Amino acid sequence: MARKNLPLSRVYRLLEPGPVVLLTTAARGRPNVMPMSWHTMIEFEPPLVGCVVSDRNHSFGTLRRTRECVIAIPTVELAPAVVRCGNTSGRTVDKFQAFGLTPVPAARVAAPLVAECYANLEARVVDTRMVPRYGLFVLEVVKAWIDPARKHPRTIHHLGMGDFMVAGRTIRLPSAMR
Amino acid sequence: MARKNLPLSRVYRLLEPGPVVLLTTAARGRPNVMPMSWHTMIEFEPPLVGCVVSDRNHSFGTLRRTRECVIAIPTVELAPAVVRCGNTSGRTVDKFQAFGLTPVPAARVAAPLVAECYANLEARVVDTRMVPRYGLFVLEVVKAWIDPARKHPRTIHHLGMGDFMVAGRTIRLPSAMR
Repeated sequence: MARKNLPLSRVYRLLEPGPVVLLTTAARGRPNVMPMSWHTMIEFEPPLVGCVVSDRNHSFGTLRRTRECVIAIPTVELAPAVVRCGNTSGRTVDKFQAFGLTPVPAARVAAPLVAECYANLEARVVDTRMVPRYGLFVLEVVKAWIDPARKHPRTIHHLGMGDFMVAGRTIRLPSAMR
Repeated sequence: MARKNLPLSRVYRLLEPGPVVLLTTAARGRPNVMPMSWHTMIEFEPPLVGCVVSDRNHSFGTLRRTRECVIAIPTVELAPAVVRCGNTSGRTVDKFQAFGLTPVPAARVAAPLVAECYANLEARVVDTRMVPRYGLFVLEVVKAWIDPARKHPRTIHHLGMGDFMVAGRTIRLPSAMR
């Protein structure tokens, strides 16, 4: 998938609508990936993102240790692979290989991009004070990539228990909000 | 709009897909309302929600003082009112009156429900430690209401700069994730 640099000032536009994302990490050269829906923007620029990762997930330990990750944003074509990533654990499965995802070296972090995703955000952990109580990591996005050909990405949004909403039409309103 | 109790265990299904919500507060009997997109689930049950409110918003002070709010979830029919709420400040405008929204007394908090919204979540502030640095409040939802007639609510999802994605179709996949 073609990749172009995305200015960091525009990162919030990708995450604010609330898509399911894939969180990639890498430990000792071995990449892992998990779906994640519990995330929010915290600051526009530099883009800060809060995300909740359960300590039951294999990615939790890797994220805490390496303090690096990639937030990759899939579209509906990847929904089956996303669900398979959620149904399995990186403790026992190489999910990239098992589910047809392609890890691509990132520019600023050791965690890989996901080639099949329309956007990839390289991020570092900048605050872990809310991790013990809530599993809430604060990330700073340090580099962002997007496929410029994808004007209306059909992101997926988790409704729970296997149900996903697929992004529909876009409307424009006279908003003064950024 | 009809309102039925929603079990707290199901609250995450409303917020996890990332809709624009309306945050209501009340100070000295005077209700206010602002749109908000920077929120995430933090825990299933009791439902904890992290939300970012800028200290430039009038609601910030009220939320910090009263430690109570309602998260109301609008659908696309309300999008023009949502945008007007974001374009104005509660310092100078009674937004409920000005934009045709109806405040309804809540059961557990002083902040009002929004009658026109398909779901309303009554919440208390339970953690303010991340407020000074990030404006991040941790809320606990203590009572939830839903219109049982709305099976496929067309929520809106903010893409920035006046663009909103409207919730599209729903797909079901064999997910083991809650």
